[in-house]
Amino acid sequence: MRRLRDVGEHAWIAALARRLAGRPADRRILVGPGDDAAAVRPGRRPLLVTTDALVENVHFRAGWAAPAALGRRAWAVNASDLAAMGGVPRFAVLALEAPPAMRAADLDALVGGFAAAARRDGALLVGGNLAAGPHLAITAAVIGEAPGPVMTRAGARPGDRLYVTGALGATGLAVRRLAAGAAARLPDPPRRVRAGRLLARVASAMIDVSDGLVQDVGQLCRASRVGAEIDLGRLAAAFAACAGEDYELVVAVPPAREPALRRVAPRLGCRITPVGRLLAGRPVVRVRAPDGRVVHAARGGFDHFRR
Amino acid sequence: MRRLRDVGEHAWIAALARRLAGRPADRRILVGPGDDAAAVRPGRRPLLVTTDALVENVHFRAGWAAPAALGRRAWAVNASDLAAMGGVPRFAVLALEAPPAMRAADLDALVGGFAAAARRDGALLVGGNLAAGPHLAITAAVIGEAPGPVMTRAGARPGDRLYVTGALGATGLAVRRLAAGAAARLPDPPRRVRAGRLLARVASAMIDVSDGLVQDVGQLCRASRVGAEIDLGRLAAAFAACAGEDYELVVAVPPAREPALRRVAPRLGCRITPVGRLLAGRPVVRVRAPDGRVVHAARGGFDHFRR
Repeated sequence: MRRLRDVGEHAWIAALARRLAGRPADRRILVGPGDDAAAVRPGRRPLLVTTDALVENVHFRAGWAAPAALGRRAWAVNASDLAAMGGVPRFAVLALEAPPAMRAADLDALVGGFAAAARRDGALLVGGNLAAGPHLAITAAVIGEAPGPVMTRAGARPGDRLYVTGALGATGLAVRRLAAGAAARLPDPPRRVRAGRLLARVASAMIDVSDGLVQDVGQLCRASRVGAEIDLGRLAAAFAACAGEDYELVVAVPPAREPALRRVAPRLGCRITPVGRLLAGRPVVRVRAPDGRVVHAARGGFDHFRR
Repeated sequence: MRRLRDVGEHAWIAALARRLAGRPADRRILVGPGDDAAAVRPGRRPLLVTTDALVENVHFRAGWAAPAALGRRAWAVNASDLAAMGGVPRFAVLALEAPPAMRAADLDALVGGFAAAARRDGALLVGGNLAAGPHLAITAAVIGEAPGPVMTRAGARPGDRLYVTGALGATGLAVRRLAAGAAARLPDPPRRVRAGRLLARVASAMIDVSDGLVQDVGQLCRASRVGAEIDLGRLAAAFAACAGEDYELVVAVPPAREPALRRVAPRLGCRITPVGRLLAGRPVVRVRAPDGRVVHAARGGFDHFRR
């Protein structure tokens, strides 16, 4: 079994660059992996840029997911940020921190999973970095384009309805089981690039659910200077209101755009569910039970430094 | 003293985004820090994309440099990669892994150092990520433009002369002293964006010295399918041939471009010294002492997984 300390940083990178170079040429790539930087040819649209990381023992533990699944997940958390802006990913760089005893084949599989997931979403892995570290940490930066309006968190108004794509809570549930030592599989995050691009045409504001619905709606509220009310009856479980890492999209839709939303809904590739509404006033998120009681008015969700 | 666990991820990011938003508007920025992704307006030239990381206990140890100097260094290692392509940095994202007990003010200073160094080189910090981790790790991705030719490692020919900007060995010496417990200051990496842009007009190939002159010239040789000979007498110390992290530029210049190099040299902002030449044959780097002996033909320099 070849470990990273057997292969070495430079040999591993050279082998990877050879494999990636063997792929069909793409006229967007002027200089691909293996040089000091990649050179790419963007379109004329505004560029979107984001970065996100998966850190061992923070976002996952060893054994929770196969290396290829971790790679796909590292792609997905970044693609989700672009999707939440209505963007389409184009290029990615991948910075890896890995322990010397890690199997080289596992790092290959991780990068392979990342690159394959990127390609499925229309993007190319064009470069990266590999450093030794005490644990595995996967940091990607992704560059995309906005084919339509750039959809921020800041455009929502009181009276807009809140929708969420797909379903919430599955990842949180798996993490809860895995952390308790039970058998579970960390689900692959949903692919919402297409939905984000289509929803950007009808939304007033959009954000992805990375830290939990209540918390991320709170972010949207602060950026838009509105309040929000979430209907717990619309979620599969109360748990889903605060579970993180679902990477679904939360979309604010003005009443006048509801017909447009209904027209676009069949093409999203996922269901879209109304989960609440935006209110005038302070940026507070209230969660209302089916019987009308406010059951959760505090801040929930994930913060890396406050537990 | 406010530590990250007192401030929290989201509050820290919100405060930072407010500070960055207070800066003078730049028409290149459509959406700045604080949303899911940044939206920027590039020029029409090819884009250069790179990523590089500084990991605690790998690239530095606590106390070796002030937080602002670490931030400047994290900028510099990325800017150096763009400079080595003849590129000019434009936009950056910064992904931080930090322990909860870290002082929030130190992380502020780190990001401040990064952003200030980026601005000095004409670039803007447009986004980032903050995750908890067992140690400090600073990963940046930088997007730049190529105002002239995109200069890879691959264009050198036998007979080209090798030059190096500035001086080699200072960082390696400081690291050696610091690791031994002696007093030393980790020097700020040199700023070579201007030199790289000008040298790209006369060079056949270029690379930055991050892992050590011998090793990085070896990379250039493999990409260009040439051999190389380095004159030890041209370096301040034999040590400088293998010391890493100098972030100077190594440039291959064809004989016909020597007059052009002499014309451009006064405008580089640093000295440029001939250190060797490229040869036909296998991509082997020979180091020759002033008396003509080959003193070092093996691979030297830094590999993250092979010591």
